[in-house]
Amino acid sequence: MTDEAAAQRHRAKMEKRKAVQDAEVASKPIDSKGLLMVHTGPGKGKSTAAFGLALRALGHGWKIGVVQFGKGAWRSGERSMLERLGEDLVSWHTLGEGFTWETQDRARDEAAARRAWAKTQELMADPDIRLLVLDELNIALRYEHLPLEEVIAALRARRDDLHVVVTGRNAKQEMLDAADLVTEMTLVKHHFAGGVKAQEGIEF
Amino acid sequence: MTDEAAAQRHRAKMEKRKAVQDAEVASKPIDSKGLLMVHTGPGKGKSTAAFGLALRALGHGWKIGVVQFGKGAWRSGERSMLERLGEDLVSWHTLGEGFTWETQDRARDEAAARRAWAKTQELMADPDIRLLVLDELNIALRYEHLPLEEVIAALRARRDDLHVVVTGRNAKQEMLDAADLVTEMTLVKHHFAGGVKAQEGIEF
Repeated sequence: MTDEAAAQRHRAKMEKRKAVQDAEVASKPIDSKGLLMVHTGPGKGKSTAAFGLALRALGHGWKIGVVQFGKGAWRSGERSMLERLGEDLVSWHTLGEGFTWETQDRARDEAAARRAWAKTQELMADPDIRLLVLDELNIALRYEHLPLEEVIAALRARRDDLHVVVTGRNAKQEMLDAADLVTEMTLVKHHFAGGVKAQEGIEF
Repeated sequence: MTDEAAAQRHRAKMEKRKAVQDAEVASKPIDSKGLLMVHTGPGKGKSTAAFGLALRALGHGWKIGVVQFGKGAWRSGERSMLERLGEDLVSWHTLGEGFTWETQDRARDEAAARRAWAKTQELMADPDIRLLVLDELNIALRYEHLPLEEVIAALRARRDDLHVVVTGRNAKQEMLDAADLVTEMTLVKHHFAGGVKAQEGIEF
């Protein structure tokens, strides 16, 4: 048997094993529930994938909420596009000020984070909303702008029919523990290294 | 100094270093060019992030192309939403048959992959299209349904104003080498392990 034939056999075996695993998962008598999904890691696509999920949710006719704990200025394109798909279906709130360890700005940033968290709790209580994107919440927690235990407890106590997506690098371990699904976006290679600048439409 | 204070100082230092790096990047006299972006890895969000980029591109009034090398049936929600944002701005082609090592289906799968590749070349030549999503192309290449060298050469020779996003796990090394930006989505934790089934609106 050639190396390539052996490799093909191995891959076929892996495919088959995966199919068996998928069938096992599908056969489990389990209930649907609202998922807590976390997109973290240093790579690109954490927020973009969250807004892709929002796009899909709108495709199902769901109402969605978005709370941005960062400044979020680069996301105005996604916002206007999602709102065009149903302005009454999109509840979007850009409330963050930014993230800094400078003492003089910290009170301002914390106040902004608390306003964003208050809005989050309001949207979590709205029974019409089925998907909630908490953009860069991980960063607000990393900077200790919000009480971690309270945030985690509220996310764990979410309604059964509410999906929540939390984005931002450096997710706290408590967030990972509470999550149903964690995806880490890892930067393998970046064009900045090759000398291409950030571009409208792609980077912002 | 307490551990926490030391940790805060360390993080502040890291933030500052990052700001300096960003400034260096921004100051480089470099040209914009169409990027080849690759979303790979075993985690969720590879295609979802690509469609999030498509959403953003439409926000800039760009025309986009999508070629699906897999069956793509779970993506009908994204398709209908993106088309609602401008049917004449979205050129969407689901041409793949699937991926199998079974001999009897391989000819069919290869023929489908070749049709999808022919459509890709047509869209790459359309000067109106600014973003092209090649969904699951990595898998077609992994299964050797297409000539790797030809595909890589064509992607490298793309127009200067065309961004291309290639998705699918197990990207070939040649694809990574050709890319400007590679993001690997790593599955850290999956709710299937906890016994929650795939759900409409989130998984498909």
